[in-house]
Amino acid sequence: MPSGEMKAVMKMKPGEGAELKMLPIPAPGAQEVLVKVHVTSICGSDLHVYKWNKWAEQNVHPPQIMGHELAGEVVECGPGIQHLQVGDFISAETHLHCGFCKQCRTGNSHICKQMKILGVHTNGAFAEYVVIPEKVAWKNHPSIPHEYASVQEPLGNAIDTVLNEDVAGKMVAIIGAGPVGILAAGVAKVSGATDIFITDINDYRLDIARQMGATKILNPQKQDVVREVLDATDGDGVDVVLEMSGNETALIQGCQMLTRGGRLSLLGVFDGNVNIDLNNLIIFKGIRVYGVTGREMFSTWYKAANFLRSKTLDLAPAITHKFKLEEFEKGFELMKTGMCGKIILTVT
Amino acid sequence: MPSGEMKAVMKMKPGEGAELKMLPIPAPGAQEVLVKVHVTSICGSDLHVYKWNKWAEQNVHPPQIMGHELAGEVVECGPGIQHLQVGDFISAETHLHCGFCKQCRTGNSHICKQMKILGVHTNGAFAEYVVIPEKVAWKNHPSIPHEYASVQEPLGNAIDTVLNEDVAGKMVAIIGAGPVGILAAGVAKVSGATDIFITDINDYRLDIARQMGATKILNPQKQDVVREVLDATDGDGVDVVLEMSGNETALIQGCQMLTRGGRLSLLGVFDGNVNIDLNNLIIFKGIRVYGVTGREMFSTWYKAANFLRSKTLDLAPAITHKFKLEEFEKGFELMKTGMCGKIILTVT
Amino acid sequence: MPSGEMKAVMKMKPGEGAELKMLPIPAPGAQEVLVKVHVTSICGSDLHVYKWNKWAEQNVHPPQIMGHELAGEVVECGPGIQHLQVGDFISAETHLHCGFCKQCRTGNSHICKQMKILGVHTNGAFAEYVVIPEKVAWKNHPSIPHEYASVQEPLGNAIDTVLNEDVAGKMVAIIGAGPVGILAAGVAKVSGATDIFITDINDYRLDIARQMGATKILNPQKQDVVREVLDATDGDGVDVVLEMSGNETALIQGCQMLTRGGRLSLLGVFDGNVNIDLNNLIIFKGIRVYGVTGREMFSTWYKAANFLRSKTLDLAPAITHKFKLEEFEKGFELMKTGMCGKIILTVT
Amino acid sequence: MPSGEMKAVMKMKPGEGAELKMLPIPAPGAQEVLVKVHVTSICGSDLHVYKWNKWAEQNVHPPQIMGHELAGEVVECGPGIQHLQVGDFISAETHLHCGFCKQCRTGNSHICKQMKILGVHTNGAFAEYVVIPEKVAWKNHPSIPHEYASVQEPLGNAIDTVLNEDVAGKMVAIIGAGPVGILAAGVAKVSGATDIFITDINDYRLDIARQMGATKILNPQKQDVVREVLDATDGDGVDVVLEMSGNETALIQGCQMLTRGGRLSLLGVFDGNVNIDLNNLIIFKGIRVYGVTGREMFSTWYKAANFLRSKTLDLAPAITHKFKLEEFEKGFELMKTGMCGKIILTVT
Repeated sequence: MPSGEMKAVMKMKPGEGAELKMLPIPAPGAQEVLVKVHVTSICGSDLHVYKWNKWAEQNVHPPQIMGHELAGEVVECGPGIQHLQVGDFISAETHLHCGFCKQCRTGNSHICKQMKILGVHTNGAFAEYVVIPEKVAWKNHPSIPHEYASVQEPLGNAIDTVLNEDVAGKMVAIIGAGPVGILAAGVAKVSGATDIFITDINDYRLDIARQMGATKILNPQKQDVVREVLDATDGDGVDVVLEMSGNETALIQGCQMLTRGGRLSLLGVFDGNVNIDLNNLIIFKGIRVYGVTGREMFSTWYKAANFLRSKTLDLAPAITHKFKLEEFEKGFELMKTGMCGKIILTVT
Repeated sequence: MPSGEMKAVMKMKPGEGAELKMLPIPAPGAQEVLVKVHVTSICGSDLHVYKWNKWAEQNVHPPQIMGHELAGEVVECGPGIQHLQVGDFISAETHLHCGFCKQCRTGNSHICKQMKILGVHTNGAFAEYVVIPEKVAWKNHPSIPHEYASVQEPLGNAIDTVLNEDVAGKMVAIIGAGPVGILAAGVAKVSGATDIFITDINDYRLDIARQMGATKILNPQKQDVVREVLDATDGDGVDVVLEMSGNETALIQGCQMLTRGGRLSLLGVFDGNVNIDLNNLIIFKGIRVYGVTGREMFSTWYKAANFLRSKTLDLAPAITHKFKLEEFEKGFELMKTGMCGKIILTVT
Repeated sequence: MPSGEMKAVMKMKPGEGAELKMLPIPAPGAQEVLVKVHVTSICGSDLHVYKWNKWAEQNVHPPQIMGHELAGEVVECGPGIQHLQVGDFISAETHLHCGFCKQCRTGNSHICKQMKILGVHTNGAFAEYVVIPEKVAWKNHPSIPHEYASVQEPLGNAIDTVLNEDVAGKMVAIIGAGPVGILAAGVAKVSGATDIFITDINDYRLDIARQMGATKILNPQKQDVVREVLDATDGDGVDVVLEMSGNETALIQGCQMLTRGGRLSLLGVFDGNVNIDLNNLIIFKGIRVYGVTGREMFSTWYKAANFLRSKTLDLAPAITHKFKLEEFEKGFELMKTGMCGKIILTVT
Repeated sequence: MPSGEMKAVMKMKPGEGAELKMLPIPAPGAQEVLVKVHVTSICGSDLHVYKWNKWAEQNVHPPQIMGHELAGEVVECGPGIQHLQVGDFISAETHLHCGFCKQCRTGNSHICKQMKILGVHTNGAFAEYVVIPEKVAWKNHPSIPHEYASVQEPLGNAIDTVLNEDVAGKMVAIIGAGPVGILAAGVAKVSGATDIFITDINDYRLDIARQMGATKILNPQKQDVVREVLDATDGDGVDVVLEMSGNETALIQGCQMLTRGGRLSLLGVFDGNVNIDLNNLIIFKGIRVYGVTGREMFSTWYKAANFLRSKTLDLAPAITHKFKLEEFEKGFELMKTGMCGKIILTVT
């Protein structure tokens, strides 16, 4: 039962930045465990909190420990824990669902109406220790590297988006090569997509996407990306478009690449409203659209775990940088430049 | 083998209007039948051709016989007809698919890439006789009234939209009480939707929708329709929204009425681009969206035929007016006012 | 906080029968509520326990209070209850799931690997009071009659079986008119099935099925039921077969009634192995088969609640008898004869 | 326009065997093309015809040219051909559907009620030339090797069976390592199955399956195959079982390996009725079963073509032998021994 103090990266107040603090090690409550964090990784939403954008302002109440992607070890079990024990190697689903709303009771906990998010609405994982409710703890196979275990959470977003429907034997276009787009390229590849187009204006990230499995990288600042995709598909377009850019122009391009009867999955978050020709891009083409948020609990975790345990999916190209927890600012500054994939913060 | 002349409503030239003409009775070609039309009915797209809007300008090449919804009798079989014979009571799927494109070869003929539409790209059914390819002919059960048989085609749009996914035991909101919205209310009702909200600014049509099965009619000019639906659903919203208005404001209202994880089907055609908050209305709520066009061939016809033959679904309230073919102008003028449901033109 | 003794129907020992006993009113534990039972209803599995068949022998450990279908009122909340309060009118999902196995964590709690069943593995609802875990409590709409609220649980089995896939606009055959078969006829009817064939050798129950919505009742002791269905469907067979008899011969007949590409849902429990021509009945016809057990949690409850609250579905014909709890033996003896639908036991 | 005679392998009369004959080159009729066959491959059903089992007796009417798997070149187009031209490199879907029955009209042509099969009900492809209806011709990408193009047809069976539902991130067991089981191992591998168990008593074929992608091969004559799978899956069993053996004992083993809520696809053809415990293997576990026959037209072809064109799937290990058409008897004799994968017959 650890006691004393721990290092933690805290959002202390509104405005850009965060601070490294020494805080008391927390104690797990009922149905909670205390986890010693080995590695944590930085999500785009952490950067939003760091930079303090509008979304952060509306959702985060400083002072609060940041972060939610993690791999660690259970060091203490609170009362009522039934399925975990000290020593378990775990990660965590970071969407803390109520378990009782209509969504939770019908297999849709990831869109729970009373959702709280670890590190957004509660103290997070950029720390030496974090308290995790048993209901969202995920026990890892011992063979999975800590860094991959931490990245399972955003990998789950990629899995959910890629696999809203089957991609095996199909042609896929990914719009946006951010960290999740890069992971999606890998998921699509190992899930049988035969042609994986990916578009971005960032050539560094496009190159990572290629290493992960994209078969054709496209930069809209250099190419007519719609024309390239149509030419490569006999004018039919791809069967599946995965929108991961949050950019209106890129979304429209994605729709134009999509064959009639195709599937469009939307994960990217847009800056504001989108202006779109629903008639010609969605309705007359008979398109199915899926809004994706969080990741389906816990089907995506089972798939992620299987992909990693079996070494079907190799995340190495997607993880481009590692820093110590104390160096978190290096990580955030690097993320601002876009010259990175996933960034790991090692804790212990 | 009928010969001589026949009456037909023709679009003679660009611009508003149409004319009753005497034309030679056509002869069926290979894999085609000649049909003596008993009744035909007016679709919203016929009104577009009559009024000559932009869509009509781009798609219709006068002179051409208008119309596509019909019920009639096979009076002559062209060479190669295998599954029909003289005397058969038929209607027709009006989307003339190629049969060989990727969409056609994977069960999606209704979004064929080489699609032609009866009465839009070929001579249509506002006439005493019409030629129908065997591949789109639909043999009716003799017990189905001619008028209902003709209305099966738009009923198929309603069926496709309502039943993209199951509605049994679910709450549904229909946005727009045009003729297809009215039919959708009936389809939702007999398919087990327990609460059917419908919104429109036309009280006449709302009243027809109520007769067809809507359990709550809502006029956004008189009520806060979103509030009404949320209040009636414990704040959850409905499970399913069917967009049949083609109106941006109404679409947004529909999205606001929809529960997390719900389904949105889009059939209405918008006047132009739509400005929409995809983040909050679609993505964060995990919504599934279906673009619907035409009607799935021929699953929707089997369902329509079953509903009508078994008298599960009664179309009487939805059919508000009947005119003779020669009186087609009365029908179009009435449609302009919106004070009607489906309008039948009786031919023979 | 009620104290003292209560009446309860107990299985005291192996062998046929049960006894009315006075027992201490139980106290709710953590995350549990105490419910004052208003009505309870008898399930086929209660009869198995009463008669002490092989399944009962393997699963039930006397002495234990029997029963699991109920409607009642929360009279006391144990520690940690968050979503219920004293006075709530509730029923209960009777499958007590662990919440942590793979099935539970992927929306399939109804097939939890550590499943316990109320009244089978724990003390049940044939009593004045019963303890219910919050996680399986279901809050009823106040407008739903107590008797219907109790019958929601088996209604959920019917809903799950009927609605494994959509039935709207389709033809359905139900094999077996036991209580759940009768409920299934009602569910199929209100969910848009246009032709509902039901087979049984019990004319009394067939007649109830007709009242619930079956359009054609068939007795295999009097008719060639397969021929009747094929003749009524142009030789095609029905789109959907719901097996609710647990009888091998009847199952085979069901398969023979089913069109190519149709759906077969299996709910009935067989006496032993089944001897079946998988080639011709399942494989060459491209049939989809669903094993159904319990009911999907809690999607089936939401649908049942909607059907009942909206009065879309009327259970009156299916509830044929009411007895006082003390008269439970009358109920069991009547069930043995088959001359009943659902039997209600009124408690308070 | 080729004329003269051609070599063909004919079933001349009931009883074992076939003969090489010289026959007039056939002429294509309306909507048909004449194809010069480059390679053809032997299917298990060809062996049935050769050996003249009961199924062959009921379906084949000698004298008739055998064979249906092929790759070749269009050398003549009959009247009415619209989508093919001389020189096209094609294969053929071998299920000749009517196009007008309920199944054909709802995207299920592969289970057409008036189905005829190439080389079974009509003259087949074990010849220098064969006539193919345009509606089943499949145009190949020029980069696909002839041998792979011919094997696309059984590959389609494997694709249909493996991909009835998604396998990405899932664990799969294949029961039976015949030629289609071997292909299924490859399809499952490239479609993202992370653990692919395959069982057979033929070690030669198991080894091929391993080369195609199976991660664990199991011989029930040497191992407790159910125990092996359960042990390797934490006692849960696999998510998906693909039955390709047609053996009752093996089917039961497959069911025992399957997790609750899992999927079972049945492709193997059994010798007669099957005796199975539906309660414990299917119903109580909430299993979904798919009967698979032929292959979904043409979704499976699009997937096969994509897999091969993109070189995602390599068929080399599955194709173990090549003979000249004239040496067909060597092929059949080898198939009898089971010491082969797919056998190619080269024609020109």
